[in-house]
Amino acid sequence: MACFQITAKDLHSRGRRGTLSTAHGTVQTPAFMPVGTRGSVKGLTPDQLRQTGSEMILANAYHLMIRPGSDVVRNLGGLHGLMGWDGPILTDSGGYQVFSLSTLNRITDDGVEFASHVDGARIYLDPETATRTQNALGADVIMCFDECAPYPCERGRLATAVERTVRWAGQCREAHTNERQLLFGIVQGGVDKELRTQCARQLVSLDFDGYAIGGLSVGEGHDHMATTAQHTAQLLPEDRPRYLMGVGMPADIIAAVRAGVDLFDCVLPTRNGRNAFAFTADGAIRLRNTAHMDDTSPVEADCGCYCCANFSRGTMRHLFNVGEMLGPTLLSIHNIAFFQRLMATIRERIEAGDFDSWAGEMILRLQAQSGNC
Amino acid sequence: MACFQITAKDLHSRGRRGTLSTAHGTVQTPAFMPVGTRGSVKGLTPDQLRQTGSEMILANAYHLMIRPGSDVVRNLGGLHGLMGWDGPILTDSGGYQVFSLSTLNRITDDGVEFASHVDGARIYLDPETATRTQNALGADVIMCFDECAPYPCERGRLATAVERTVRWAGQCREAHTNERQLLFGIVQGGVDKELRTQCARQLVSLDFDGYAIGGLSVGEGHDHMATTAQHTAQLLPEDRPRYLMGVGMPADIIAAVRAGVDLFDCVLPTRNGRNAFAFTADGAIRLRNTAHMDDTSPVEADCGCYCCANFSRGTMRHLFNVGEMLGPTLLSIHNIAFFQRLMATIRERIEAGDFDSWAGEMILRLQAQSGNC
Repeated sequence: MACFQITAKDLHSRGRRGTLSTAHGTVQTPAFMPVGTRGSVKGLTPDQLRQTGSEMILANAYHLMIRPGSDVVRNLGGLHGLMGWDGPILTDSGGYQVFSLSTLNRITDDGVEFASHVDGARIYLDPETATRTQNALGADVIMCFDECAPYPCERGRLATAVERTVRWAGQCREAHTNERQLLFGIVQGGVDKELRTQCARQLVSLDFDGYAIGGLSVGEGHDHMATTAQHTAQLLPEDRPRYLMGVGMPADIIAAVRAGVDLFDCVLPTRNGRNAFAFTADGAIRLRNTAHMDDTSPVEADCGCYCCANFSRGTMRHLFNVGEMLGPTLLSIHNIAFFQRLMATIRERIEAGDFDSWAGEMILRLQAQSGNC
Repeated sequence: MACFQITAKDLHSRGRRGTLSTAHGTVQTPAFMPVGTRGSVKGLTPDQLRQTGSEMILANAYHLMIRPGSDVVRNLGGLHGLMGWDGPILTDSGGYQVFSLSTLNRITDDGVEFASHVDGARIYLDPETATRTQNALGADVIMCFDECAPYPCERGRLATAVERTVRWAGQCREAHTNERQLLFGIVQGGVDKELRTQCARQLVSLDFDGYAIGGLSVGEGHDHMATTAQHTAQLLPEDRPRYLMGVGMPADIIAAVRAGVDLFDCVLPTRNGRNAFAFTADGAIRLRNTAHMDDTSPVEADCGCYCCANFSRGTMRHLFNVGEMLGPTLLSIHNIAFFQRLMATIRERIEAGDFDSWAGEMILRLQAQSGNC
């Protein structure tokens, strides 16, 4: 049975409403996945995470391979056992981290040798080991090992990264043995439309369960991101889920849904939550500000999350001001709930048939807000 | 109506089972209060706290007076509003902190001038201001401003501290205006029985809602603590609640219940929880140890807390090993649940009539464990 079903399409954009079926349950799309890099969405228990409306979460194969190690994770019942999360999980392959976090990495056509960012130990990762590692971790959706080029990037290097990404994707497909896991290919190519087209066509011919758009949200800005996502999404098969990796700000998500993207992940809700920045419909607020000292109103009016239902802005300011760990936890809950509420509205608007006009208004409104975090 | 009712007495010790009625609900005693020094029991939401079986919590007037300030707390709906906790709260008067945390303090017979431990600002605290501050904070039980002498302490200084503590207690009683708050006197006197007797008799003549035994758990050790608590408790009126401040280890609590104590507070469950030390019936375990790496068993078998129901020792080790904040939160939940389970057992044993023999066995067993945290 196909893992992805489209239940409604927007008439005025490429936006679609659907369901992604995995070994640990079904996800309503478009969906946002909170990020649990090292096996924990920072500061939240699985119960709290569920209460934000989150259905699927992301963890990182690179980090978990280093600590505690994929064998340890397998011994502890796989990622679901480790995290105490019985819903769908997706693991990133480690490609992005190998290039962004590790030092002294040596890339060849076969794979990458790099120094662990924790203790400098030499580690070798190639398509086969990245896939076997993810097989052992046991997420419901796993990703091909790819080369994520930086932005900006000289065209020759970008083309080489695309070539490797395609060749490696074929090797990942061959190495993949766990039938309970869906395998997604990752389209690279920076903001170069020709390379994106070439990469997408070659990956599609390999027939993956789903396709990701990688290499964005690396500094290219909203317009480049939206244009590239739009260009790439329409090259991917209609009947497969599309995942825009590492994106992003609410306006970016809305623009990408318009382009036909179904899945998103981003560290912003938790990272900003830890730094006392709250997402609200009226723009970002910084809870450390003295202005909130005596404020008995919740972080966001009409938000039903645990933070807003039980605590005032004044309390939140106090918790951040004295360094209590409850502050980051509560604000991460709020920020994730904010993102999940956005996704629920997107799904409702697609079903109601007025998504495109709503999206246009929302993007303008969000861009007018002076820096939503 | 009296705030304290005794519902069962142990025949072989002074242990008693009762209820403490406050403006925010009734507490089953003997009871253990987790510590929320700065308006938050570190790392736990009020929901999580409630799920550990906690009914009453402690906050600290000294810390809250400095940040965010008692006026701010009042504007935010009092301590209950600030903390999002609708159950009973007790505030310590600040006496202990003035002597232990502040620098450059200048003690006179009238009060104490000290430098804030945060920014060095000069602050003056005397019985009246300490009481008015606690009136503004709005806890259900507030404490007299006392002088807590260090251990060991020269007898002359100890006697002066007792004299001041008694005189100040009278001034607190006069300054106290909020009828919704119970006011407890604090017996000082170190491990000197004569001074304890003198202090207790004079405080009892002032007729407080309840009485605390202060100045213990400051380095005197289990035997001195138990002897002094026993000596002091029997000097206090049978029909008033007795609170042993800052105690303590499970064996200390059991010994004090035997002596007729009803209320306890201690930072150990949360402090040890943040440092990866778990309380279990079989003694302390240190979750950072590599021995727990592949261990799929919970922190403590037969513990029904959220941590033990959902996470393995292997996961806990990983969370502490990589520094995820979920580790401290989960282990604080377990440790508080462990203490609340101990208190529930104490209450059951008193009701069942076999508390004293159970207590004797438990104290021996706990003391035999090599360093229960």
